[in-house]
Amino acid sequence: MSIIDDALKANEAYAHNFKLGELPAPPKKKLAVLACMDARLTIEPMLGLNTGDAHIIRNAGAIATEDAIRSLLISHYLLGTMEFMVINHTGCGMLTFKDSELLERLERETGVSAVTPSHFHAFDNLEANVRRQVARIKAHPWISRDISVRGFVFDVRTGKLSEIKA
Amino acid sequence: MSIIDDALKANEAYAHNFKLGELPAPPKKKLAVLACMDARLTIEPMLGLNTGDAHIIRNAGAIATEDAIRSLLISHYLLGTMEFMVINHTGCGMLTFKDSELLERLERETGVSAVTPSHFHAFDNLEANVRRQVARIKAHPWISRDISVRGFVFDVRTGKLSEIKA
Repeated sequence: MSIIDDALKANEAYAHNFKLGELPAPPKKKLAVLACMDARLTIEPMLGLNTGDAHIIRNAGAIATEDAIRSLLISHYLLGTMEFMVINHTGCGMLTFKDSELLERLERETGVSAVTPSHFHAFDNLEANVRRQVARIKAHPWISRDISVRGFVFDVRTGKLSEIKA
Repeated sequence: MSIIDDALKANEAYAHNFKLGELPAPPKKKLAVLACMDARLTIEPMLGLNTGDAHIIRNAGAIATEDAIRSLLISHYLLGTMEFMVINHTGCGMLTFKDSELLERLERETGVSAVTPSHFHAFDNLEANVRRQVARIKAHPWISRDISVRGFVFDVRTGKLSEIKA
């Protein structure tokens, strides 16, 4: 049995006890979170959120890519969020490689090049990465100046969030 | 006090009781999930996952964008995941608008055009969207044929996942 089959079994129990069927689509707390995909981050308990409170956008490195900006725009303009958090974390895998190394490995192992993505957004300074993503979001001409955008580092050893000020 | 300040207060309690400081970076279950950002989806309890079990990638519509593919490649090649789930859901906001409408609204409200993103990936058929994203991931030349990629719809009224077969 695969891990996905295990997850489907677990979902049967979740659905059996499900009591959230009347939640509306707009996030109750008008909050959107952009966080790393890392398995050690479980966003809702980390932030004291309940199901229905916030949009949660995640990718490798919590990078404000065009796709993350797309999601944030939909979050604000269609579903009314007014505060954005960017959450990186200590021990991030994105600190452990270089884009060029991964690109060469993929080309070598698959025998295929000239494929996108051509960049992986690896970084070597965690706090600088947070500042850059916050700055990118704030600078985007379609992101309203009324939205509060703040950046954080989550410590995977202690569970604590620290704000990274501009 | 802002919602983000409330979340930081809640995080103090989370950190106070934190007992997960020794988890390794590679996801224990070798699973990566690509799900919609919708506030009504809390992925870990939906799938019976614990913190540390799986990478969780989320964007508006659970679209296999270049950025989501980037995250899945990092997940597999650097951190060893072998099964991917794509999770859309009933009542998705992406079913409620057209890309051209949002693009025109953004240009009109901000007075700025010729900015990316130029596409928002709105869709009008939920199951077809799941099938398309699964197919995109499977067809990518850098995604190993050894990875199991399966698609699902989460029913926000019942909490139940249904598999969408190709």
